[in-house]
Amino acid sequence: MRLRTSCDLKFEIFEPTPFILMLRPRSGSQQWVEREEYKITPSTPVFEFTDNYGNLCQRLIAQPGMFSISTSSDVVTSNFIDQGFGAPFIEIQNLPDAVLSYLLPSRYCESDCFNEMGAAITEGQLMGYNQVAAITSWLRENIEYLPGSNNEPLSAIQVNNRQFGVCRDLAHLGIALCRSLSIPARIVVGYLYNLEPMDMHAWFEAYIGNRWYTFDATQIDSPGGYVVLGFGRDAADVAIFNQFGPSVFPVEHLVKVKECP
Amino acid sequence: MRLRTSCDLKFEIFEPTPFILMLRPRSGSQQWVEREEYKITPSTPVFEFTDNYGNLCQRLIAQPGMFSISTSSDVVTSNFIDQGFGAPFIEIQNLPDAVLSYLLPSRYCESDCFNEMGAAITEGQLMGYNQVAAITSWLRENIEYLPGSNNEPLSAIQVNNRQFGVCRDLAHLGIALCRSLSIPARIVVGYLYNLEPMDMHAWFEAYIGNRWYTFDATQIDSPGGYVVLGFGRDAADVAIFNQFGPSVFPVEHLVKVKECP
Amino acid sequence: MRLRTSCDLKFEIFEPTPFILMLRPRSGSQQWVEREEYKITPSTPVFEFTDNYGNLCQRLIAQPGMFSISTSSDVVTSNFIDQGFGAPFIEIQNLPDAVLSYLLPSRYCESDCFNEMGAAITEGQLMGYNQVAAITSWLRENIEYLPGSNNEPLSAIQVNNRQFGVCRDLAHLGIALCRSLSIPARIVVGYLYNLEPMDMHAWFEAYIGNRWYTFDATQIDSPGGYVVLGFGRDAADVAIFNQFGPSVFPVEHLVKVKECP
Amino acid sequence: MRLRTSCDLKFEIFEPTPFILMLRPRSGSQQWVEREEYKITPSTPVFEFTDNYGNLCQRLIAQPGMFSISTSSDVVTSNFIDQGFGAPFIEIQNLPDAVLSYLLPSRYCESDCFNEMGAAITEGQLMGYNQVAAITSWLRENIEYLPGSNNEPLSAIQVNNRQFGVCRDLAHLGIALCRSLSIPARIVVGYLYNLEPMDMHAWFEAYIGNRWYTFDATQIDSPGGYVVLGFGRDAADVAIFNQFGPSVFPVEHLVKVKECP
Repeated sequence: MRLRTSCDLKFEIFEPTPFILMLRPRSGSQQWVEREEYKITPSTPVFEFTDNYGNLCQRLIAQPGMFSISTSSDVVTSNFIDQGFGAPFIEIQNLPDAVLSYLLPSRYCESDCFNEMGAAITEGQLMGYNQVAAITSWLRENIEYLPGSNNEPLSAIQVNNRQFGVCRDLAHLGIALCRSLSIPARIVVGYLYNLEPMDMHAWFEAYIGNRWYTFDATQIDSPGGYVVLGFGRDAADVAIFNQFGPSVFPVEHLVKVKECP
Repeated sequence: MRLRTSCDLKFEIFEPTPFILMLRPRSGSQQWVEREEYKITPSTPVFEFTDNYGNLCQRLIAQPGMFSISTSSDVVTSNFIDQGFGAPFIEIQNLPDAVLSYLLPSRYCESDCFNEMGAAITEGQLMGYNQVAAITSWLRENIEYLPGSNNEPLSAIQVNNRQFGVCRDLAHLGIALCRSLSIPARIVVGYLYNLEPMDMHAWFEAYIGNRWYTFDATQIDSPGGYVVLGFGRDAADVAIFNQFGPSVFPVEHLVKVKECP
Repeated sequence: MRLRTSCDLKFEIFEPTPFILMLRPRSGSQQWVEREEYKITPSTPVFEFTDNYGNLCQRLIAQPGMFSISTSSDVVTSNFIDQGFGAPFIEIQNLPDAVLSYLLPSRYCESDCFNEMGAAITEGQLMGYNQVAAITSWLRENIEYLPGSNNEPLSAIQVNNRQFGVCRDLAHLGIALCRSLSIPARIVVGYLYNLEPMDMHAWFEAYIGNRWYTFDATQIDSPGGYVVLGFGRDAADVAIFNQFGPSVFPVEHLVKVKECP
Repeated sequence: MRLRTSCDLKFEIFEPTPFILMLRPRSGSQQWVEREEYKITPSTPVFEFTDNYGNLCQRLIAQPGMFSISTSSDVVTSNFIDQGFGAPFIEIQNLPDAVLSYLLPSRYCESDCFNEMGAAITEGQLMGYNQVAAITSWLRENIEYLPGSNNEPLSAIQVNNRQFGVCRDLAHLGIALCRSLSIPARIVVGYLYNLEPMDMHAWFEAYIGNRWYTFDATQIDSPGGYVVLGFGRDAADVAIFNQFGPSVFPVEHLVKVKECP
């Protein structure tokens, strides 16, 4: 599947405002970026760097006035996400070093508080993929997916209390439950083909059977059409924009995902 | 000042238990490790790796029975920590890339919730070192340092509610307040000469005037004699031991810090 | 200056052949990639990774038959390269850690053999930028720039003996001479606007006055219009394609650099 | 086997001289450092960093006068190096990213010039470990191991011409031959128990069957007792000391390796 994504953001800036953006998809084992555009208006010096998780991040200072970011990409991605029922739990001692940090609790995934709940939800399951599949089913049945229900990320504890949340919030609870079982898990932000309503999206991955698998509790079945922008421990690591100083919110914000013509 | 530190841990293990340890001090700009010992009994295969924050971590699987770790080091460190009143706030755009992740909220430092409190505590202060000094003074006056008061880390929000905590908890609140002002801050674990009662210790550092400065709200004045074991966003990153599976606690745990003979 | 670059390569492949490519420009402090295309025909799984020098590399296995790579980009770059006459030599002890490896001899830059020659060429020069400017002038006057004169990289010693070479070879000698004076130096591959004859290009950078400066002994004066694809110690690190197994050479190879419309 | 190593270096310094040292063994999958000492006289500020290859390096400026470095360690290492006859060649596309740079030619390993010779020496061998074993046997039979025969490293081409060299030189030729067959290979410096005459030692590793194997053409059979100080592409990367400015050589240099009492 070749998808054409676009994300346009427009801000009204009142004083020089530093931004860190994460809007450049990166080719990896899961996707190939065939075309990409990234325009900033007015033209502004930008520095790009790679963060601890391998994401490409763009730093700049927006000057007062209208400030807009316009990105677009053509990405080759899979029609169907891989499923791996039966893929085994990897013992801590056999995990790659680089995966270990995804076992630790983080800002929005207080995995240290979910030991009992994680065990209860996955009772009787084969260790590994089937446990995470059980967590995902549980989320679908018990936490309502309410796009637009809040702006600030909810932590796993908060989502569990409220019983609803946006895609990112459901991912937080899924990740916390995985980590409580010593399964490394990370958040992913990006785009999803046919998402309703269309917007940026977030889901999670769990490390099982020596690879990362995709899970998304907001979708009934598991089609493909995912385009990754970034990975992290939770939403704190993968804001598509982090802005410093007095808050500014996009006055326009438009996301599109279509099949490439 | 040349300090001789030691940390001995003894566990009773009931089933094979993976551990990740962070007990090897590393030489850097702040300290020089002249001698070091690290013994594990019974002898066990250990793999060492470097985490995202530059810490040396040791992975192993403890087998059932008594399991003990005995570490010791001679470290050259400063008699007095550097103070830097007047050292300026560094604008986000001028921070080194590697420092940026210390601006983000983390598991135990919900900096996103402290904007108003951070501003209030530092009102009228020169931006930079003086703000962090004001935060540290505020912690000394308002949060009671109660060694041994709890085992599990408290997050900044929790410490702020309870008004007391162990060294690590005070550091969490200090870090969250710094980050709320866009000052990068990180936790440090290690040893402190003359700490009362003697134990592992935790404090924090803030990035000001293009370098890291040490702050410790648990000590009235600011002597030196600090030995660093590791750095991280908060306690989740710098557990001196992370253990996976059914919990085991040290049956013995002895820390000593003396001047080298 | 907004440049539109393209590089098209076509190979005839006789057996499955692993490639590592370095054809994706990366945004950094020197350039901003506004648009980029990277097409591989026939469609082939590609894995992208970052090497030790921060370059984006693409791995794939070309299957028998015609195999073509077509890349294109719009890059915002400077009209004029920065000059820094008087910029000072940085003492080894003050160099950033990440720069130190560019002091060591490497495959094609046997800097350990150029101590006397480096000293002679730069005699009487202010230490730093002026030394490297003197080296570059010396190269212009003494080594003939002969595009297309050889396919295999020449090492600094070989170039110095033959007194001619392609852009890459002149860069090797310049780098070796810089390193012989303890000035960190690295090769850069990419594109140059108005290069005659048009092709991929190589030049070098030296670290002086706390930053990297661009030097190009193949050009009389120093216009801008450089687009960077990758950095490395020498040509061994920055092949735009490394191919393994029986040698295959492009049957077609077309490079274009124009101003963006 | 528990080995006690020591290396003492003494220099007479005439002007402030920057050094980069690589004298701290690091625990890894192959060895465990139980005790370590690292003393510098007179006391001098030292900064430690990790290089591109994962080695711990120490930077300092030696002041005029006598300058001595005294290091010692107790290391648990294997009695016998692993042999892996039959371990398979790993196709380029299946190599970990971090291993790829060990396929490239480097300062002293001009692997690009050894394609025919590498093929000839390994003719008829099973691809993988057996090829490297054949290379090592060939080195033992054809290149004389002459400790102390030269101070400056010889490149693979030079060793092949002279037909003799020190340990490091034999390793260079071994590495170049491996890389000519697309087998990743790296130099290792450290200590060897019972080496005759005792001194620092160098050998090489090749990546086969998804792990690194040890090869040492200077020893008839392959006992164990190796202690690793550092890894690199060749001797340019792993000097136990790199010194900048007018050359200084150790006036004293004493290496010992014994079994721990």
